[in-house]
Amino acid sequence: MIRKLAAEALGTALLIISVLGSGIMAADLGAGNVAVMLLANAIATGCMLYCIITVLGPVSGAHFNPAVTLAFLLRRKLPPRQATLYVAAQIAGGLAGVWITHGMFDLDLLQTASTMHRTGGAQWFSEVCATFGLLFVIFGGLKARPEAVPALVALYITGAYWFTASTSFANPAVTIARGFSDTFAGIYPGHIPGFIIAQVVGVGLAHLILPKLVGRH
Amino acid sequence: MIRKLAAEALGTALLIISVLGSGIMAADLGAGNVAVMLLANAIATGCMLYCIITVLGPVSGAHFNPAVTLAFLLRRKLPPRQATLYVAAQIAGGLAGVWITHGMFDLDLLQTASTMHRTGGAQWFSEVCATFGLLFVIFGGLKARPEAVPALVALYITGAYWFTASTSFANPAVTIARGFSDTFAGIYPGHIPGFIIAQVVGVGLAHLILPKLVGRH
Amino acid sequence: MIRKLAAEALGTALLIISVLGSGIMAADLGAGNVAVMLLANAIATGCMLYCIITVLGPVSGAHFNPAVTLAFLLRRKLPPRQATLYVAAQIAGGLAGVWITHGMFDLDLLQTASTMHRTGGAQWFSEVCATFGLLFVIFGGLKARPEAVPALVALYITGAYWFTASTSFANPAVTIARGFSDTFAGIYPGHIPGFIIAQVVGVGLAHLILPKLVGRH
Amino acid sequence: MIRKLAAEALGTALLIISVLGSGIMAADLGAGNVAVMLLANAIATGCMLYCIITVLGPVSGAHFNPAVTLAFLLRRKLPPRQATLYVAAQIAGGLAGVWITHGMFDLDLLQTASTMHRTGGAQWFSEVCATFGLLFVIFGGLKARPEAVPALVALYITGAYWFTASTSFANPAVTIARGFSDTFAGIYPGHIPGFIIAQVVGVGLAHLILPKLVGRH
Repeated sequence: MIRKLAAEALGTALLIISVLGSGIMAADLGAGNVAVMLLANAIATGCMLYCIITVLGPVSGAHFNPAVTLAFLLRRKLPPRQATLYVAAQIAGGLAGVWITHGMFDLDLLQTASTMHRTGGAQWFSEVCATFGLLFVIFGGLKARPEAVPALVALYITGAYWFTASTSFANPAVTIARGFSDTFAGIYPGHIPGFIIAQVVGVGLAHLILPKLVGRH
Repeated sequence: MIRKLAAEALGTALLIISVLGSGIMAADLGAGNVAVMLLANAIATGCMLYCIITVLGPVSGAHFNPAVTLAFLLRRKLPPRQATLYVAAQIAGGLAGVWITHGMFDLDLLQTASTMHRTGGAQWFSEVCATFGLLFVIFGGLKARPEAVPALVALYITGAYWFTASTSFANPAVTIARGFSDTFAGIYPGHIPGFIIAQVVGVGLAHLILPKLVGRH
Repeated sequence: MIRKLAAEALGTALLIISVLGSGIMAADLGAGNVAVMLLANAIATGCMLYCIITVLGPVSGAHFNPAVTLAFLLRRKLPPRQATLYVAAQIAGGLAGVWITHGMFDLDLLQTASTMHRTGGAQWFSEVCATFGLLFVIFGGLKARPEAVPALVALYITGAYWFTASTSFANPAVTIARGFSDTFAGIYPGHIPGFIIAQVVGVGLAHLILPKLVGRH
Repeated sequence: MIRKLAAEALGTALLIISVLGSGIMAADLGAGNVAVMLLANAIATGCMLYCIITVLGPVSGAHFNPAVTLAFLLRRKLPPRQATLYVAAQIAGGLAGVWITHGMFDLDLLQTASTMHRTGGAQWFSEVCATFGLLFVIFGGLKARPEAVPALVALYITGAYWFTASTSFANPAVTIARGFSDTFAGIYPGHIPGFIIAQVVGVGLAHLILPKLVGRH
């Protein structure tokens, strides 16, 4: 179990490093063209997702995301105690990832007040859709072609940066971690709860619809 | 059959979300560089195509496109009644996708007059070529390496955004849906029939040429 | 044999469409940022290469390139008569591809004087290296992992647009065809012979070195 | 052994060509938008990594990197004498790659004083992380899915250009070679030792942590 939790923490840390680090680099270099910045941000995140899911999948299942862990819990594929520990490891790993990223970019390690405002009905609806879509590719992929799941998640998120208005956080641990970084990919802490509620609604929706549509794996 | 139709509707909705959503995001952020916008648009669409074809292929065959359904009908791989229902599900899914996208980006849900003009012989010739090429990778891929079809369609369309003058709609359901969105990826409704006729011509051309070239799968 | 020649002609036409079409689109939209244009050009070409090699590989071997055909001839994998017919089909297909592209983009079909100057020792040395590298991934890939050849060629060329000074033509049929298009990806006709000689030198170099390095497939 | 050393030298030369060449091309064309330049640089490098690891993996193991060779040595997968020869071949190949690149771009072949400053704690910490991450995807990938290693390394490095502040050299032979090129991807020679020490620290960290986390392959 320790090994699984370490894998969940390391994977979530690496995910956060890819999200925040590429956002900081892009903002430094982007010469004001936000589309170019978001493209770099999306590509770097997708690259990392392919790596961590491929490498750590056999170790812990490669959730790196409390929404995914909750979805497996609802399907009774994970005992509640393990799910709780997974979520704790993911949140801890996400925070460690923030500090590692700030260290690499020579920024203050502790930043408690991201000023990136991300709120309102359209943003929340985006997070519901983003999370539903993520679970669609995970559970649908596990049924249709399990070895494609790393590519499915990586490509889905790379695209979803663009086709959802919220740039698809779709992950409560990542959402919390991004609250501790006042950089391109940050989020104002007061807006975190709205995002997490929307993500949980997405999990519920997926739990109702996906078993009928793509079956159980 | 209900499950197949739901898969066709959901897949087409997700396809439209990727096309329109990434177009809206790109136009918001692109700082006037249309090449960067189209690059994001193309990459996001390709990412989604890989996901929906991989996940829903085993459920419905993953057409999401009346031109593809027509091509399977002409090859007698699909009974006429099923083909008709597929097309209806695709059009309905496409429209639902428009409204979901508008909801995520906080736009008026119903937009009846896209002002993006897309007409004339060169555009129509582009759609003939785009549709022929799409069927070339689908039927040729099914013969040569069926497990590569999701990647083939995804990469073909990502490229075809660039190498056809029309940015490769190549899909009547997507064409109709895009008429209901006055955004970057929209199309003026009066120009929809020309595009659909060109796409059907592309299907006919593929039906004549492909069996001789790549054989039947 | 007719079917093989048709496949070589169609594949080369599609390759030229991807190179020229995406170059024209990029120049139309690129707002003066040539790096963005070349990125679109490179990605679109790579996407098409994956498609045509995957789909037509089982039909004709998917050369689409007289340099590749010459390399197979030197290895005695292709009789001289077939090689000659392949090269003729590739050149004819390339020219057809130019005219189809011009038709899609509403340009004069026949353009006999591209004004893009591409000459001098550094350009020729680039073409020697580009062609050697292409044959390295083809013959090395056939030995190491044949099913990866479509991805290898696609990714190699996408990268080689950037890491060679000539943007890696590496293909005499494509070089000739690009002489007939006065657009972003064109070449001044008087500079074609120098490019082709350099490409043939690259084939010779590969013929000497590769069998010792990666073995025979 | 000669064949293995030739493979290590050629692979490292090709890697350097992709890094430096795409950097020079990007700087020539990038119109001042450094984010676009780095995107081209990262994509071209990733494309080449996929090619050289796939093709030369069966010949030499496809290290192309003294840090990787050291990691295999520490795991007793490589005798010390072979490791030493590998490192020599990698450094020689890297230098040859510099001169080939300068030749293709019509630059002075010998450039002894790159003026790109890359130093300080944040840069060094970035190199520790970058090297640890590279070994994580290599050794984790060899355990989890060996046939995915070329894609893992290619995608990891493409992303790591963005999410580490140093753009992830993560390779002493590449670091040395880049000291001989006063171009976009160069490094001031006085800053090379700091980078190499950081990379060796990354190897040590990986040697301590990875066997416990992902097991031995």
